[in-house]
Amino acid sequence: MGLTWGVCCLLVLVAAAGARPPAGHTFNTSDYLQQRRAILAQEQTDILGQNQVLSAEEEQVNKILMAAKDAEMEDGFETLDFLPSKNFMTVIQQMEESQVFKLIKQMPKGAALHLHHSAMASSWWVVQELTYWPHLYMCYDTDDHLFFRFFEKPDTTCAWELVSTVRSNYVDPSEFDAMLFSRLTLLTENPDEKYPDINTVWSIFQGYFATISNLIMYRPAWETYLYHALGEFADDNVMYIEFRGSLPPLYELNGTKLTEEESVAVYRDTTQRFVDDNQDRFFGARFIFAPPRGVDNATVHEYVSLMKRLKKAFPDFVAGFDLVGQEDKGEPLIAFVDELLQLSEADIRVFYHAGETNWMGMESDDNLIDALLLNASRIGHGYALVKHPEAKMMALEKDVPIEVSPISNQVLKLVEDLRNHPAVGLVAEGFPIVVSADDPGAWGASGLSYDMYEAFMAFGGAKADLRFLKQLAINSISYSSLDEAAESDLMYKWVEKWKEFVAKTPTLLADRG
Amino acid sequence: MGLTWGVCCLLVLVAAAGARPPAGHTFNTSDYLQQRRAILAQEQTDILGQNQVLSAEEEQVNKILMAAKDAEMEDGFETLDFLPSKNFMTVIQQMEESQVFKLIKQMPKGAALHLHHSAMASSWWVVQELTYWPHLYMCYDTDDHLFFRFFEKPDTTCAWELVSTVRSNYVDPSEFDAMLFSRLTLLTENPDEKYPDINTVWSIFQGYFATISNLIMYRPAWETYLYHALGEFADDNVMYIEFRGSLPPLYELNGTKLTEEESVAVYRDTTQRFVDDNQDRFFGARFIFAPPRGVDNATVHEYVSLMKRLKKAFPDFVAGFDLVGQEDKGEPLIAFVDELLQLSEADIRVFYHAGETNWMGMESDDNLIDALLLNASRIGHGYALVKHPEAKMMALEKDVPIEVSPISNQVLKLVEDLRNHPAVGLVAEGFPIVVSADDPGAWGASGLSYDMYEAFMAFGGAKADLRFLKQLAINSISYSSLDEAAESDLMYKWVEKWKEFVAKTPTLLADRG
Repeated sequence: MGLTWGVCCLLVLVAAAGARPPAGHTFNTSDYLQQRRAILAQEQTDILGQNQVLSAEEEQVNKILMAAKDAEMEDGFETLDFLPSKNFMTVIQQMEESQVFKLIKQMPKGAALHLHHSAMASSWWVVQELTYWPHLYMCYDTDDHLFFRFFEKPDTTCAWELVSTVRSNYVDPSEFDAMLFSRLTLLTENPDEKYPDINTVWSIFQGYFATISNLIMYRPAWETYLYHALGEFADDNVMYIEFRGSLPPLYELNGTKLTEEESVAVYRDTTQRFVDDNQDRFFGARFIFAPPRGVDNATVHEYVSLMKRLKKAFPDFVAGFDLVGQEDKGEPLIAFVDELLQLSEADIRVFYHAGETNWMGMESDDNLIDALLLNASRIGHGYALVKHPEAKMMALEKDVPIEVSPISNQVLKLVEDLRNHPAVGLVAEGFPIVVSADDPGAWGASGLSYDMYEAFMAFGGAKADLRFLKQLAINSISYSSLDEAAESDLMYKWVEKWKEFVAKTPTLLADRG
Repeated sequence: MGLTWGVCCLLVLVAAAGARPPAGHTFNTSDYLQQRRAILAQEQTDILGQNQVLSAEEEQVNKILMAAKDAEMEDGFETLDFLPSKNFMTVIQQMEESQVFKLIKQMPKGAALHLHHSAMASSWWVVQELTYWPHLYMCYDTDDHLFFRFFEKPDTTCAWELVSTVRSNYVDPSEFDAMLFSRLTLLTENPDEKYPDINTVWSIFQGYFATISNLIMYRPAWETYLYHALGEFADDNVMYIEFRGSLPPLYELNGTKLTEEESVAVYRDTTQRFVDDNQDRFFGARFIFAPPRGVDNATVHEYVSLMKRLKKAFPDFVAGFDLVGQEDKGEPLIAFVDELLQLSEADIRVFYHAGETNWMGMESDDNLIDALLLNASRIGHGYALVKHPEAKMMALEKDVPIEVSPISNQVLKLVEDLRNHPAVGLVAEGFPIVVSADDPGAWGASGLSYDMYEAFMAFGGAKADLRFLKQLAINSISYSSLDEAAESDLMYKWVEKWKEFVAKTPTLLADRG
């Protein structure tokens, strides 16, 4: 589908040079003001999506949206209580009360293209639902890490206790649930104290995945988890997702492990069941096989073989390949170039995490260049892209967007105040980005709206309006891995939803009074 | 002097497009590696200054420098104890022990072009020297602000006490001096606690200026202060400075106030005396008249008249005009456009503070565009430039650098981790910047080396080397306000100093063992 749908001003830096009014010496105020207006207008149009023309109905919604945004920007400017400048985990409730946030929640946002399989759903739901299932056991290892597992009969690898028994020993079971919840997110009131640096937060973050893994890899639990996660996105007015996963084996109550193919079949069938049940509001999901990067060449060789098998077995459901884990700690892409080139040769799409680092010029920082040379369809995070002018130019030429997950970058300590996120400059230039949520369940979010709010308020500044959000929705569809026909179909369905949203928003607000 | 001296790759983004190797589908590892090498080499050359060719002797110094830098980068990567990622005020001593810092201190750094008159010298020196002068009185106002003033006989505006008397009441006078020092800097071990937000730190910062002002505006004290400040820069191997000041009247012991012209004459004569005493190592200083921006049009009208008078009276010493103060709180440039255009008309150079804000799209954020339209020779800070693609292009076309003061931006809470400073991306593209120190005395620094260290380690990443630092020195001269002859003269003298530095560095280090 590509350029037809929206992607606006890719070469704006070059193209604008012609359009810009001459800026010579002007001593006359009215000439000055005219030049100034022209430059401001051009900068307004440069912003991602702002070159779109809105319908009269959309302009009406835009007025409502911008009145709310202006009020929040002004209030933030005066009080400095500006949500994107603060750690997300400390402002969740404030964000939920924001008028802008409420409008964004209602808005059809298209797709979320960067998610990880075991942090897609709200952790509170996991506690309230899955930890109440029978046959669930829990155990602490010697380092006080909490593990779960469903058993017919617990094994002897750990001092397993039935969760229901432990809970029944509490006078107030909600206390126990709150404890479980605290183990199943990074949520805290004092993130700066609890997570003093990037390695500490990553270590605790990886602990989260270790804790939740066997809780949701129980085959029936996973079916329920995935079905529910898709529901959270659908409820958040997201119609399609692409999620990454390392394919840990699903297991049955008796301990039987499913093969990778059997596991992916469960993913696909659960997705299909959800789509069948929600045809009016959800389009589908695809899976990106994304195993850990901290491995050796032989392991990557196996990854590649498995990837080829999966692509053959599930051509419509499996979108492609990625490698995950803290880039600074794992192996760089260049370590596996022989193996990874095989994926290009086999025409398998790749979506590498790259540039999720602050270490400019170090080995991990060059992943961006390898991701592009390996023909990534999108770049996961690409936080460091602004430090790589050649990579940035390659991305523009190849029309490769970066997948920006603002809350993730903040919680995982790349940046504190999201107004300093490098995406701000990229958005100002119209560089193609998609916004996603990475691991919303890990930090008390759900769906896509929280990240969209951050992007709208922090990346767009005071001047980005409905056009920017509309463009992000369009980008999320046009940069999906869907083939042309499916993409058109999704775009068509999204346009219908968008029209409904535009039609109902003024009425809704009028009704509210 | 302009482009002849160094300014490297202004249009690198455009120019590089032709040079870059084609990046199509490559399935062959050796082709892949060749493409990769070409891209990495191009990115290396893109970095500000990295397209320079070093002499064999310079290469030797570069090896020494980069061995030290690599060790510090690797150590930072492993331990996360990476100085530019932390608040400067908490790592000063660590920085002073750094081998890279010690080399930078020895390096002839050219000029410091963005300084403010009452924070140029180390505050510890102010306490140890000026507060020991006779006739100095101190007083607290009802809000516990500390004020100083020299009197023959104190007036009745405040409950003045002789500083020498107050000090003599202390058993340990060093305790008193430490208290004075704490009032004369923002230094603290817990900046995050003491300065929770940008408005708080600015309010305390403005208090610092109020406290120091009448201490150093006593004519003999100012002569000593300015002479000493020039000495600190000379000791730090800086040969020339341009400093901004609002021209508060100098006063004599009997209360007589000097006129603005008389005050500037003192500035000029003191500078000349220092230059005469230090001809082998110091070239000079120029003054930028920079009164507060938080005023009305009538006041700016007066500023402009005074500026014209000063330029006529001191054509060689007064460089031009600026407006200062927290941009978000003061008036935007556009409020004064009628008055400010008169300066363009009178061919008076301007050096506006602009874009020292995180409020993208708000009124203050547009100062960047006005600064460029008003033909600023340089932009003070320009922190927000990456959010203004049209302004950025204008700056490139007009060859207008931004004056980056990394420590200032960090202490005054625009950014925490300097690896997230927008200058990082600009340096990667070769955009022209100069590095300066803003108000080193206000945060326990002195000279230019601390800021140069931050720029080298944070903006340059692991890959920027001696070429980058050399370019910053060259930029500081070629973007000065000096006329062509004076600039050539300074550049020639700097080259001599540079050669000496290059010749002696390996020997010095060998001697140290």
